[in-house]
Amino acid sequence: MERTTIGYEKLRSYLADMLEKGLGYDRQTAETGAYVLAEADARGHASHGAARVKLYHDTIQDGDAVADGKPEIVHETPVSMVIDGHSGSGFASSKLAMDRTIEKALASGACMTAVRNTGHFGMAGVWAEMAADRGMIGIALTNTVRAGIPLFGKERLLGTNPICVAIPRGEKPHFLLDMATTTVALGKIEVAARRTGIMPAGWFVDEEGEDTQDAVKAEEISRSGTNPYGGMTYLGGTDETMGAHKGYGLGLLVELMTAGMSLGNPTFDTYSGKGGLCHYFQATRLDLFGDAGAIEAHVEYILKTLRESPKVLGRDRIYIHGEKEHENRKKSLEEGVFLDPATWKRLDYYADLFGLPHPEP
Amino acid sequence: MERTTIGYEKLRSYLADMLEKGLGYDRQTAETGAYVLAEADARGHASHGAARVKLYHDTIQDGDAVADGKPEIVHETPVSMVIDGHSGSGFASSKLAMDRTIEKALASGACMTAVRNTGHFGMAGVWAEMAADRGMIGIALTNTVRAGIPLFGKERLLGTNPICVAIPRGEKPHFLLDMATTTVALGKIEVAARRTGIMPAGWFVDEEGEDTQDAVKAEEISRSGTNPYGGMTYLGGTDETMGAHKGYGLGLLVELMTAGMSLGNPTFDTYSGKGGLCHYFQATRLDLFGDAGAIEAHVEYILKTLRESPKVLGRDRIYIHGEKEHENRKKSLEEGVFLDPATWKRLDYYADLFGLPHPEP
Repeated sequence: MERTTIGYEKLRSYLADMLEKGLGYDRQTAETGAYVLAEADARGHASHGAARVKLYHDTIQDGDAVADGKPEIVHETPVSMVIDGHSGSGFASSKLAMDRTIEKALASGACMTAVRNTGHFGMAGVWAEMAADRGMIGIALTNTVRAGIPLFGKERLLGTNPICVAIPRGEKPHFLLDMATTTVALGKIEVAARRTGIMPAGWFVDEEGEDTQDAVKAEEISRSGTNPYGGMTYLGGTDETMGAHKGYGLGLLVELMTAGMSLGNPTFDTYSGKGGLCHYFQATRLDLFGDAGAIEAHVEYILKTLRESPKVLGRDRIYIHGEKEHENRKKSLEEGVFLDPATWKRLDYYADLFGLPHPEP
Repeated sequence: MERTTIGYEKLRSYLADMLEKGLGYDRQTAETGAYVLAEADARGHASHGAARVKLYHDTIQDGDAVADGKPEIVHETPVSMVIDGHSGSGFASSKLAMDRTIEKALASGACMTAVRNTGHFGMAGVWAEMAADRGMIGIALTNTVRAGIPLFGKERLLGTNPICVAIPRGEKPHFLLDMATTTVALGKIEVAARRTGIMPAGWFVDEEGEDTQDAVKAEEISRSGTNPYGGMTYLGGTDETMGAHKGYGLGLLVELMTAGMSLGNPTFDTYSGKGGLCHYFQATRLDLFGDAGAIEAHVEYILKTLRESPKVLGRDRIYIHGEKEHENRKKSLEEGVFLDPATWKRLDYYADLFGLPHPEP
């Protein structure tokens, strides 16, 4: 029988074992990582789910990360921290960072934390929402590996540099904006390469800095560890008319808040013997601005007004960021988490490599 | 002789008199407003310069603002404030807000301030950079009047909702990202309407929520106080393929941080007897993250690497946000501030209305 879905808890516990026994993470980091990956699949973001075991394994194999690297708080004030990830897992440093950021924010009202020399932390949303789960505004930013081109440039010096902000609204699912500042994620270029080889204009510029629709070439360029030319555009594409300078500015802002504030590696210096990447986290108590309950209700009033306003022909819904993922998650918890055939196959591959049993539906 | 430029100090002092004697601002608010408007013209952003006297005058005439409304701090903690603008000038409440936000950040490390029932504060950049001038990260956000459409909607419920972040980098001009979250500012649609009547696809949707290139109609819709349908798109345009959901998310985020946190009017409730709009400000000390000098130098290292990287054919420069404006300002201070004929004419009109002398070059 073909495997399609897997129980959420089963997936989580399987991934925890794989990250611990296969990659060498300590048990707590393995459990954190398994949670992050399972959540991504449960919410319908397969690009950040179980299939990413490959990325984490590769980074250790390539010597760019150390499985048991322990994050360390190297600077702190009542409202801030700087953490050195010591080339360890992004799950370990992000867990420490958000746990302590929330603690400090509970005591001081707000806390801002910059992390350097860390690893890929999975889907940004799970970190920002940890603060929202405690009634606070949460922010999570990260730089990545070389992906995007500064406007009018040819070299991919910046990352996909996501911005994630979570705002609680009482009983309702959080407002959760979680967006790469590049026009699209690499996953979309891969899909285009596989299907037709052609992608929309405005997503990618080639080695000469010219807009290209060749998805196969774009994927090849993106995966090259040696050729730094050509890369993704930022929100707004290649054209100032459509605001390309704004998207580039947002990507650059993330770079400055992560690498700049942590004194860590900018995307263009990440790995290649120079150590890991950088995050930025923030938690802000709602009652800094008065009655937290009234604020949550007011936020919900704004969102409700949008949601109930007239829709364009052919659309029956105005989305609030995070709602779609919340609904997917609910369904996944009830009916099982869908994994596509490629992901099942990849898990089998790593199970064999690590001497673990294959995952079962 | 045709008037073209005016000395920077002359323009500032002329505008201060006009705002005080013509609009009824107190002297300090008039001077603050004159500074903000003169700075916009000096930096090449005429859309936010002296010609905006009309907007401030109209708002008072329409009963949407009170010339001598005094802002009041209604809630505060060591790291936050909420200010009620009491329908006064955005210059008055923003000046109070940033002065006190900086003071509190100097004492506590960071401060976040939400402002409600305030007026248009001019160019966001001047407020965020007040923090950067003191070596801190500055943030300025504001909602506005009805301008933009939630993705898949038909009603313009949100504002142009700019995001502005200033990051100091030592002796160099600040990194200063100052961007409307809509694809373009209304000014660009006005120019298109005047010149050809046609604008690029992706800027605006009509009353049915369909993409339109009719700039004349778009301008007419935007200026309508009674018809709430049709409006600007957010960064990414109308197409999810190009990230339209992301730009809409950023615009909505600004709405939640300004109106949500201040318990003030969302854009769709602004004016019409319900009071003014909302801002959000933040100042964050760099030394929250360690050695401020080292951080500024690291920020400059990142920006220098981008600036010096290879350019696409036909471009000789990769811009850092804020540089262009910094250069324009320098030139304006040396050679005089350029005002276009329409602005000179508008100043004459208000000079006559207020019984003031016409401005001289």
